[in-house]
Amino acid sequence: MAAAFFESRFQPVASFELFVRHLPPERRYLIAAGLEQALDFLESVCLSPEEIDFLRAHPSFKHVGPAFFDYLASLRFTGEVWAVPEGTPVFALEPLLRITAPIIEAQLVETFLLTTITFQTSIASKAARIVDAAQGRDVVEFGARRAHGPEAGVLAARAAYLSGLAGTSNVEAGFRFAIPTLGTMAHSFVMAMPDELEAFRRYCQVFPETSVLLVDTYDTLAAVDKIIAAGLKPQGIRLDSGDLVELSRAVRNKLDRAGLSSTRIFASGDLDETKIASLIRKGAAIDAFGVGTALATSSDAPALSGVYKLVEVKEGSQKSYHAKFSQDKMNYPGTKQIFRFANAGGHYSHDLVACAGEKCPDTEPLLTCVMKDGRRTDRSPTLPQIQNRFRQQLQRIPERYRDLSSADTYPVQFSGELKRLLERVRSQVMPEERVTR
Amino acid sequence: MAAAFFESRFQPVASFELFVRHLPPERRYLIAAGLEQALDFLESVCLSPEEIDFLRAHPSFKHVGPAFFDYLASLRFTGEVWAVPEGTPVFALEPLLRITAPIIEAQLVETFLLTTITFQTSIASKAARIVDAAQGRDVVEFGARRAHGPEAGVLAARAAYLSGLAGTSNVEAGFRFAIPTLGTMAHSFVMAMPDELEAFRRYCQVFPETSVLLVDTYDTLAAVDKIIAAGLKPQGIRLDSGDLVELSRAVRNKLDRAGLSSTRIFASGDLDETKIASLIRKGAAIDAFGVGTALATSSDAPALSGVYKLVEVKEGSQKSYHAKFSQDKMNYPGTKQIFRFANAGGHYSHDLVACAGEKCPDTEPLLTCVMKDGRRTDRSPTLPQIQNRFRQQLQRIPERYRDLSSADTYPVQFSGELKRLLERVRSQVMPEERVTR
Repeated sequence: MAAAFFESRFQPVASFELFVRHLPPERRYLIAAGLEQALDFLESVCLSPEEIDFLRAHPSFKHVGPAFFDYLASLRFTGEVWAVPEGTPVFALEPLLRITAPIIEAQLVETFLLTTITFQTSIASKAARIVDAAQGRDVVEFGARRAHGPEAGVLAARAAYLSGLAGTSNVEAGFRFAIPTLGTMAHSFVMAMPDELEAFRRYCQVFPETSVLLVDTYDTLAAVDKIIAAGLKPQGIRLDSGDLVELSRAVRNKLDRAGLSSTRIFASGDLDETKIASLIRKGAAIDAFGVGTALATSSDAPALSGVYKLVEVKEGSQKSYHAKFSQDKMNYPGTKQIFRFANAGGHYSHDLVACAGEKCPDTEPLLTCVMKDGRRTDRSPTLPQIQNRFRQQLQRIPERYRDLSSADTYPVQFSGELKRLLERVRSQVMPEERVTR
Repeated sequence: MAAAFFESRFQPVASFELFVRHLPPERRYLIAAGLEQALDFLESVCLSPEEIDFLRAHPSFKHVGPAFFDYLASLRFTGEVWAVPEGTPVFALEPLLRITAPIIEAQLVETFLLTTITFQTSIASKAARIVDAAQGRDVVEFGARRAHGPEAGVLAARAAYLSGLAGTSNVEAGFRFAIPTLGTMAHSFVMAMPDELEAFRRYCQVFPETSVLLVDTYDTLAAVDKIIAAGLKPQGIRLDSGDLVELSRAVRNKLDRAGLSSTRIFASGDLDETKIASLIRKGAAIDAFGVGTALATSSDAPALSGVYKLVEVKEGSQKSYHAKFSQDKMNYPGTKQIFRFANAGGHYSHDLVACAGEKCPDTEPLLTCVMKDGRRTDRSPTLPQIQNRFRQQLQRIPERYRDLSSADTYPVQFSGELKRLLERVRSQVMPEERVTR
């Protein structure tokens, strides 16, 4: 498409919006995430000489002149970006990101932006549900080994952390993003050592303040008895199999009777928000949860219907508005703003998606300008700042809009001006396919 | 764990095996994939000075002496690897990979190996089902935008290709892995241009031999009429919405009557193997399928129960065998080999998982030594070679073991020697937790 735009000298400024078409049935809201990596990419994107040689030699480009490849060699992203801050709850059809740039630049970055933002958003959204279910107990991300490759694991740890997790077992994510790293031993550590108690002893020696001992390799309660009899004082005990309600209560009893009431009980083993809620409801004595596969792959909703749609084109003083009308895939034309309304108690009541130029006093506009001329307008928030924003924002969304069992859907409305624009575009799009004003 | 092994001077040679515990109900077989990236990693793994500084400053390592960090600075993988070649059908409990190395090295690479191999294996397995459903028609991977981040998209394109896809729309995957890249236009190209026909015309001008025109932006049949009336001769037409059976037949008729019988019809739009099979059954006139989300995320089974288990430890001349016996998570001890048996007609009848030293004449041993002393033993196969292996191997698995609707499960047996070893370890593991012979 870039070559076709270039060769036909069609290089207007275009605006694209990135949004999720509809929420999966397993989600009531999304948590925006991934903007930081999107902006990193936009500030640094360029093609290497090897990549350009590859394209030049590609049979598809046989009829494309050399000027296009010279253009690619100098290509940088020079556009403007508006975005919803990471950690913000968002809903279907609300733009998370708007790109305004020369059309080739705006088009070439589509795939990177979609995969980066919708993936991290899907993980952050899953994490928010899990954190909610844990009712204040710590949740640690354990999913690197089941993520979609090593890099996905690191990004999943980041996205999960911004939705309120306590940390990750992914050391690379700790190194790159300063996320707290928390670890425990694996079964292999216990199995490799001369015997189970020896494994516990050596681990506590090396990590006297942070040792979490995995006790289910052979017999959970017997392992706890050994720990107590040997006078070890681990920071935590991890249960990874069996009846976690019964076992956690029995282990808690044993620890308390031995004066180890500050030793915490961690649970893991294919957990998700439903299992965590059920464990807590049944009175499990669990202080913290390690969640892996379900979190790092958002396994019940592993993809979002994220799309990146052309909404506006400017050629000189001419501006045109664009929308797609094919079955079930309609979108609103023109650049937009989202206004979030709160009621007197501070809870959010609804969102209004409006044309970008509209004003809406006493509400919070969610999209702000984060990049101009290809450069960030401001320093990015830190992950703890994003986590704070997440916590403050989510608690203002009324409970009934967050719970899967509730039939109430958070109301997202569209402004009169936006609806009129849609109708104007729709009425003129066939046969003319666009409207100019 | 590495620090605890090191500080307690416990550095035997350990063997770990990577396998999938059980197949998801949506899969009858898996296609091994990801070995190439695993071996790249093992040949190059090392820690940077910045990474070591990060660990040194980490509160968990407060009581770990400086010798450990010196050890980390010199750490390389020096071990041996046996593996099932990429493109091979495999089943639950069959080791895809066996690592034998000093225990710290073998342990540190666990997460990378698991995420790399189980992710690519899950995509290759999904791709095989989709290729099967397409009955010889081309399938192209379109999923980068919905993958779990940009790198996952590239690796998904690779894994899909080795299971018989025709190519990918991911240009980066084409650049890095020489996978054929095939593209079409997006709706935004049609929407941005002055009108639909102008968009088609310009695209055909730039790509006279490879133009695939997307015709559903406004009205599919009207778009095809425009193309014919304008005398354009696109290589293909892409349908992305609507009733693909009806539309494809109507479009085929129009094209044939206009003498464009060599113009192919591509279909896309949230396709998967079930939808493709149904389209073909209903007589859709579709020549090739573009599959995105379902393929690049293996959305119906987005994770496999891949694990990496300690099976053997050697200290000098002493060898011990290890297995885990906790509920539902049992595994066989000792290093293993998989023998695949064929019947007289050349079809595979069953697999036998045996101890590594066992012999089984006239069968194919699936695990071969691919790395010694941290270096590949041989040049890796190319992706087309892997694709060939995939095709040859899969057609030898009888149909009834591949079809989800069949109740027959491909038989995987365990040798008498392996079963006796398991019983020996089991009988001695409590209370001693290990057996030495």
